[in-house]
Amino acid sequence: MTLIKQLASSDDFTGYYLLKELEVKLTNGATPKDYFDIVLCDGSGQMSAKFWDVSSTDKETFFPMGLVKVHGVVQTYREKLQIKIVRMRLTTEEDQVNLTDFIRSAPISPNDLIHAIKQVQSSIEDEEIRRIVDYCVAKVDDKLSHYPAAKTHHHAYFAGLAYHIVRMLEIGEFICKQRPFLNPDLIKAGIILHDIAKPEEMIAQLGIVSDYSLQGKLLGHISLASSWITEAAIHSGIDLESEKVIGLQHLVLSHHNLGEWGSPVQPQTAEAVALHHIDAMDAKLQMVEDALDTTPESEPWTPFIRGLENKPIYRMKL
Amino acid sequence: MTLIKQLASSDDFTGYYLLKELEVKLTNGATPKDYFDIVLCDGSGQMSAKFWDVSSTDKETFFPMGLVKVHGVVQTYREKLQIKIVRMRLTTEEDQVNLTDFIRSAPISPNDLIHAIKQVQSSIEDEEIRRIVDYCVAKVDDKLSHYPAAKTHHHAYFAGLAYHIVRMLEIGEFICKQRPFLNPDLIKAGIILHDIAKPEEMIAQLGIVSDYSLQGKLLGHISLASSWITEAAIHSGIDLESEKVIGLQHLVLSHHNLGEWGSPVQPQTAEAVALHHIDAMDAKLQMVEDALDTTPESEPWTPFIRGLENKPIYRMKL
Amino acid sequence: MTLIKQLASSDDFTGYYLLKELEVKLTNGATPKDYFDIVLCDGSGQMSAKFWDVSSTDKETFFPMGLVKVHGVVQTYREKLQIKIVRMRLTTEEDQVNLTDFIRSAPISPNDLIHAIKQVQSSIEDEEIRRIVDYCVAKVDDKLSHYPAAKTHHHAYFAGLAYHIVRMLEIGEFICKQRPFLNPDLIKAGIILHDIAKPEEMIAQLGIVSDYSLQGKLLGHISLASSWITEAAIHSGIDLESEKVIGLQHLVLSHHNLGEWGSPVQPQTAEAVALHHIDAMDAKLQMVEDALDTTPESEPWTPFIRGLENKPIYRMKL
Amino acid sequence: MTLIKQLASSDDFTGYYLLKELEVKLTNGATPKDYFDIVLCDGSGQMSAKFWDVSSTDKETFFPMGLVKVHGVVQTYREKLQIKIVRMRLTTEEDQVNLTDFIRSAPISPNDLIHAIKQVQSSIEDEEIRRIVDYCVAKVDDKLSHYPAAKTHHHAYFAGLAYHIVRMLEIGEFICKQRPFLNPDLIKAGIILHDIAKPEEMIAQLGIVSDYSLQGKLLGHISLASSWITEAAIHSGIDLESEKVIGLQHLVLSHHNLGEWGSPVQPQTAEAVALHHIDAMDAKLQMVEDALDTTPESEPWTPFIRGLENKPIYRMKL
Amino acid sequence: MTLIKQLASSDDFTGYYLLKELEVKLTNGATPKDYFDIVLCDGSGQMSAKFWDVSSTDKETFFPMGLVKVHGVVQTYREKLQIKIVRMRLTTEEDQVNLTDFIRSAPISPNDLIHAIKQVQSSIEDEEIRRIVDYCVAKVDDKLSHYPAAKTHHHAYFAGLAYHIVRMLEIGEFICKQRPFLNPDLIKAGIILHDIAKPEEMIAQLGIVSDYSLQGKLLGHISLASSWITEAAIHSGIDLESEKVIGLQHLVLSHHNLGEWGSPVQPQTAEAVALHHIDAMDAKLQMVEDALDTTPESEPWTPFIRGLENKPIYRMKL
Amino acid sequence: MTLIKQLASSDDFTGYYLLKELEVKLTNGATPKDYFDIVLCDGSGQMSAKFWDVSSTDKETFFPMGLVKVHGVVQTYREKLQIKIVRMRLTTEEDQVNLTDFIRSAPISPNDLIHAIKQVQSSIEDEEIRRIVDYCVAKVDDKLSHYPAAKTHHHAYFAGLAYHIVRMLEIGEFICKQRPFLNPDLIKAGIILHDIAKPEEMIAQLGIVSDYSLQGKLLGHISLASSWITEAAIHSGIDLESEKVIGLQHLVLSHHNLGEWGSPVQPQTAEAVALHHIDAMDAKLQMVEDALDTTPESEPWTPFIRGLENKPIYRMKL
Repeated sequence: MTLIKQLASSDDFTGYYLLKELEVKLTNGATPKDYFDIVLCDGSGQMSAKFWDVSSTDKETFFPMGLVKVHGVVQTYREKLQIKIVRMRLTTEEDQVNLTDFIRSAPISPNDLIHAIKQVQSSIEDEEIRRIVDYCVAKVDDKLSHYPAAKTHHHAYFAGLAYHIVRMLEIGEFICKQRPFLNPDLIKAGIILHDIAKPEEMIAQLGIVSDYSLQGKLLGHISLASSWITEAAIHSGIDLESEKVIGLQHLVLSHHNLGEWGSPVQPQTAEAVALHHIDAMDAKLQMVEDALDTTPESEPWTPFIRGLENKPIYRMKL
Repeated sequence: MTLIKQLASSDDFTGYYLLKELEVKLTNGATPKDYFDIVLCDGSGQMSAKFWDVSSTDKETFFPMGLVKVHGVVQTYREKLQIKIVRMRLTTEEDQVNLTDFIRSAPISPNDLIHAIKQVQSSIEDEEIRRIVDYCVAKVDDKLSHYPAAKTHHHAYFAGLAYHIVRMLEIGEFICKQRPFLNPDLIKAGIILHDIAKPEEMIAQLGIVSDYSLQGKLLGHISLASSWITEAAIHSGIDLESEKVIGLQHLVLSHHNLGEWGSPVQPQTAEAVALHHIDAMDAKLQMVEDALDTTPESEPWTPFIRGLENKPIYRMKL
Repeated sequence: MTLIKQLASSDDFTGYYLLKELEVKLTNGATPKDYFDIVLCDGSGQMSAKFWDVSSTDKETFFPMGLVKVHGVVQTYREKLQIKIVRMRLTTEEDQVNLTDFIRSAPISPNDLIHAIKQVQSSIEDEEIRRIVDYCVAKVDDKLSHYPAAKTHHHAYFAGLAYHIVRMLEIGEFICKQRPFLNPDLIKAGIILHDIAKPEEMIAQLGIVSDYSLQGKLLGHISLASSWITEAAIHSGIDLESEKVIGLQHLVLSHHNLGEWGSPVQPQTAEAVALHHIDAMDAKLQMVEDALDTTPESEPWTPFIRGLENKPIYRMKL
Repeated sequence: MTLIKQLASSDDFTGYYLLKELEVKLTNGATPKDYFDIVLCDGSGQMSAKFWDVSSTDKETFFPMGLVKVHGVVQTYREKLQIKIVRMRLTTEEDQVNLTDFIRSAPISPNDLIHAIKQVQSSIEDEEIRRIVDYCVAKVDDKLSHYPAAKTHHHAYFAGLAYHIVRMLEIGEFICKQRPFLNPDLIKAGIILHDIAKPEEMIAQLGIVSDYSLQGKLLGHISLASSWITEAAIHSGIDLESEKVIGLQHLVLSHHNLGEWGSPVQPQTAEAVALHHIDAMDAKLQMVEDALDTTPESEPWTPFIRGLENKPIYRMKL
Repeated sequence: MTLIKQLASSDDFTGYYLLKELEVKLTNGATPKDYFDIVLCDGSGQMSAKFWDVSSTDKETFFPMGLVKVHGVVQTYREKLQIKIVRMRLTTEEDQVNLTDFIRSAPISPNDLIHAIKQVQSSIEDEEIRRIVDYCVAKVDDKLSHYPAAKTHHHAYFAGLAYHIVRMLEIGEFICKQRPFLNPDLIKAGIILHDIAKPEEMIAQLGIVSDYSLQGKLLGHISLASSWITEAAIHSGIDLESEKVIGLQHLVLSHHNLGEWGSPVQPQTAEAVALHHIDAMDAKLQMVEDALDTTPESEPWTPFIRGLENKPIYRMKL
Repeated sequence: MTLIKQLASSDDFTGYYLLKELEVKLTNGATPKDYFDIVLCDGSGQMSAKFWDVSSTDKETFFPMGLVKVHGVVQTYREKLQIKIVRMRLTTEEDQVNLTDFIRSAPISPNDLIHAIKQVQSSIEDEEIRRIVDYCVAKVDDKLSHYPAAKTHHHAYFAGLAYHIVRMLEIGEFICKQRPFLNPDLIKAGIILHDIAKPEEMIAQLGIVSDYSLQGKLLGHISLASSWITEAAIHSGIDLESEKVIGLQHLVLSHHNLGEWGSPVQPQTAEAVALHHIDAMDAKLQMVEDALDTTPESEPWTPFIRGLENKPIYRMKL
């Protein structure tokens, strides 16, 4: 079966794909007809597709997030590849395909990611800090196993958030060894908590964000997480004015570094400075890695990447 | 008695003043001697002063925030007026002077300001919103009667914060009448809560801010107030995910309008847009009014005002 | 009759509308045909429409700003609603419809707005200021009764400019009462004059701006209004170097506050600071109100609003 | 006689200088005494100076802008040279020195500069443009012969403004020859008018600006000059809405190029683009030339120059 | 023959043009057909065109940068003119047309431009500077005769780079006469070298840039030219740490003036300040001239020009 | 012996220190006397000091970078501690003190740092890359063992540059393990080369930068290092247009990430993105660590740190 990423102009192909987006539209002209404007995806990438002359049965059959078997041809439209769907049907049990095979996922399984996070949680020595972290993680619990870290910016796929946390924990462990003046409990807690309210900020399914929630838009994940720490401290009877609580809230509030990037305060503890740079390093390098991964091997340049000063990345031939 | 604001170069004067700041310093030269570098103030303004050749008794007698009787002469130093103190003593009961006569205060008494705020609180029709407001106001209660609204920016004097709130409530009342689509409960609550954590953010005495608190520096009054709303809601059993709680937190979080001005989210409700403009109008006009008030009548221009694009204000002669 | 704002996908409807924009275009394909790309509007909003297979008679019949009777169906195109016109004809006298019923207007009649402005003009106590205001208002006289305040930014409808002025005068009156150190004559004059050259800056019909004039593009309404004050003073024999003239020109020149927003000088009188904030408060809250008004009740969010940090507004359910 | 520019640390010298600034100050210490904090200058530069232990006669004798004979020694204070005045007296007729020998001046005589400008004025072919230019020049007439072009930015010396205009006219003549599509009348008029209101914006004596005028602060020279064109057109009966008047006002209004640099509109005619660049080229190169001229030959680097991205200029040894 | 610039809506025309861009696309609809999406150009401008129902022969016949004879009609599409091609064939020898007649070129012949540059090169008095210049020019030698100066920004046509250099040399000669403190050798060398690596930065044919090279993207023409000077100095045995080499590299590195415009250092020699302004003046005025030239005479306004604060230029009628 | 960092107000102490800066100044007053304005330092920090009534012998005896034995008392001046020197003499051999004991140094010995760097150099597998790195390192060879990484920004002490490189190499090694798609040779080479021209950019002694060199000011260390790579490639016969050379130059040129931070191009290879973040993480965390180290333990807050958004760092008590 051909992966989306491998399709080239003029290809005539058949395969299973996920119907990521579907909209019924009307053709121009005197006798407009319905057609589907579609986005098909699999784990390797996505491509837009047209399905012309749809029947009323079609309109009742196909919906986003359905798995379909497609026979199509690849065309070029406005310098981009696009699929013309020749035939399409829903998959059945006999096709023996699973939804999760068709979405982009973190390269480590959700179970392993959650396990890694849990282990770090239990290694936090300070009991109060550990309790606050546990409380906040519990609030999003099952979402942590599959939510992406962002809509498009970075780690925008199934279990992307947990993957981002785990990789940051690895960097954090290294940095704490290299610079022993950093407090490992605060670094661990800061990493786990910094984006912990993202699943509340975004509405996502199968690693794909469809929208932001009301709380996401009006409060944002940074202020949400800070409030959760307040909640956790009240719940566990920890003094809200203790340095632990203030220190954890400061880590969360300052991790975007600048006001124009969403942080109401700037990093003013050693761990807050470290957290910002651990976050930046993991997010930016993942953007690079993902962009190279989803760009055909034959292309020397990835598309422009907003989070990298809107520059593309060149695939060095060394 | 001569007010600070009225002192002119070469004046020889005697009067009562507040010792706002005092530092013991050493003169230059081969045989350095102690002297006091002082800031004297009264309700009309402040001026720096030098007290040369201080004795060790002097060093044990005079401290900041003490009331003193001063005989001095006014000199010019680096284009600014400065007092050379000829004689100085602490005031006694017989002088019949009170500390509060020597500090800059809001033009309305703290009692009246608090009364006005309480009345608006009780006029909030929605019981849950009222309870949240009451809880947060209770947290700062007696500080609300005397704290300034800022260190230097605006309303930087005794009861300046309460005065700022009361004047904003007047504008808010007008705007709700002019534009009935605004929800008066949210406007009232937003005005009372928007700076409610300032007394926790700053350390002040007699309306004079000496520093920011740890919470002020690491969290800031905006995030603090948002957390207090969380606290209040938990305390009163109000759903943290209700539109009321989110709406109030949004008002507080967005009232500085832009990220670079400290707001992690931008106004996205009608009342949040209104709150920002009510706040700006009151703060900016008060800066103008205070600058004109504390500039000698004979001066056509006030000093440069940071909050007004760092421009001075001209006293029109119309 | 169905209002534009009420149309929903798949509706089949008949009604009267204003042909706001019309362009003759050609379909793609080997035998391209003419069609109309149209914008229909009424007082509740506007929607784009297509009229396929137009005849040469059609091309001589229909022009922008004509009233038409339309039979159409509503379709979805690129996630937006769009009308497919089935039949269309010009209205006749018998239809008993008037152009002004089909355009978006200020909620107060032009006569009442002009009357309100005139009354404030005559209440200006300083004769020279009043004469300058009268002169400038006279220059745009009949345009003041129907011009919008902007192309799209705010108050972009019939008599929007006069409505903006009247509402600002209400705020101005309140602020002068609240802060007696402000000079009411300057506030009144500043409000009436600040945008007075907008009708010279823009080319508009029925409250709809089609373009900016040469003077609008090369000089801008701020410099134009400042020159009009020069003209007015020369005409009335008022000293060009008097504080009145300078003060009025300063109000106009500084009302956008910052250089990057078009003001060559920043506010440096009390009244100039006030004027900027009165203008901002009225413009921004009107943007909010208009956006909520023209967004279907069922939609919780308005579109993004450029003038509000490009954020949408949420319709609180309180 | 030693020029200011030539003084070096430890020099003991006698010479005539201009007392550019003088302030009476008090020494620190228990028995403060009066001293003068002085700025001495001549055409080659300026240096600060101290005159200790001044008598009351001294205080009645010496004032800014007086010519003095000074015996002094050069000292180093905070890494800068400074004069300790040993003896000082006012000059008398017998000294045969003239004020104008001690101020920094344009390298061409005022008469020649004015003559050059007048000649260009009379070469403007369009009579209406010429009349407007003549009117505006007449408004500042004798000030044009000696005013500087700015307080410190560039051409900050006697007749600096006229020199700036004349040099720009030379560049303008060249550019009009190189690019015949430019209208020479507009280029000439734009150059003469662009800073014509500077003498009204600033208060200056002997080429030294002491302050900005009220009009300078509240309106700025750009808007002032635009209003003068209005005045001129009214006076000469030229249509205010003609392209000539609009074009000239556009040249003046746009010559700072950006809003943040003070221009309410950006250049939108060929001549306006040219004017901005002619102005920039002359101003920036003059900053360089003046900085090199007033920096001792032995110094490879000039001081930092605000108008040149706050960089110093290196004196290449080629 | 009709020039592109002269085509108006509904014109039916026949003529020779250059096929600047060609893409094979598919029509929408159930039975999609191939068509060509084309850009046709001649020396006066360019226009997009559609060629419907192309055969497989057509697809093997027509390629970009081919000369074609076209019979077409002009249509309006989305407010822009567009050509519907009725018939099209490749030109033959008998048509007696040359490629170079159909591209936009500098108004002076490449030979004359190169000759002018060579003459200036040989007039450089300092032998080492001359050798460095000669070496760098030799690196791009034949490309200098036809490369444009930019993709779209300015001088974007055949021999645009050489034309830019020659015109800057004219300004440079004038400025060196006006300000003799400038070193003519450095000005000449700076002008010739400042953009000398552009032909290495961009991939162009017939004055049309199709892309940037790898070196262009990863290093940029500024750093490239600086490295070439290093190369040249090594090659000619000139001390890399001499003021000549440093001075020339500084000229190249600083000529964009600011970091955000691509210069890693800001101008800090007199010649570097001059070079930046000579470059700006020539580039900006050429943008204006080219925009007016390629806008139909009947249009009073050119399109928006990115490099001129994204403003259009008005064609004054004086 | 008391460390500078431990001195407190009123301390009377004797010890050995380094005379880091010394300026002869004159006291104010009628009979000015020479005094020394001094900066004393040791490895723990620095403090300004005054030595009053200096003799002419003193002026010939004491110079910057000399070791002295000092008897002094600590005073407070403008809220800062300052030493009044009671007695001072140069150290002799008998004092058995070494210069290097009195300067701030990297916590690892220069030998070990150089050894670590050399080892990484020899581990670069690609021979051409290794040769280029070796060539550039050879250019600064002995300076690499003692130069600081910056004047004040970060690692501003003896061997600070080598320490910065070694710590970055540790991070680089970790990141290459965590993300195998990164090329270790390029990461190693990028880290060693990114600041390799700093010793040419700055003039330093004992880890203290006194000024920038001419090349530093006119070219900057980024362009210098890029030119060195050109030099190295020419010297080793490596193709200047090979991906290796371009890739290495890109790493150096882009490592400041943004134009306003000095990089003429933005990172566009995976390794360039990584290099920027490795550099930022090490520099910022070292700023934090150094600031905490040099702030007395009793102080909860460090001074403001320019490179950390001009914020101070709080010493958490966890």
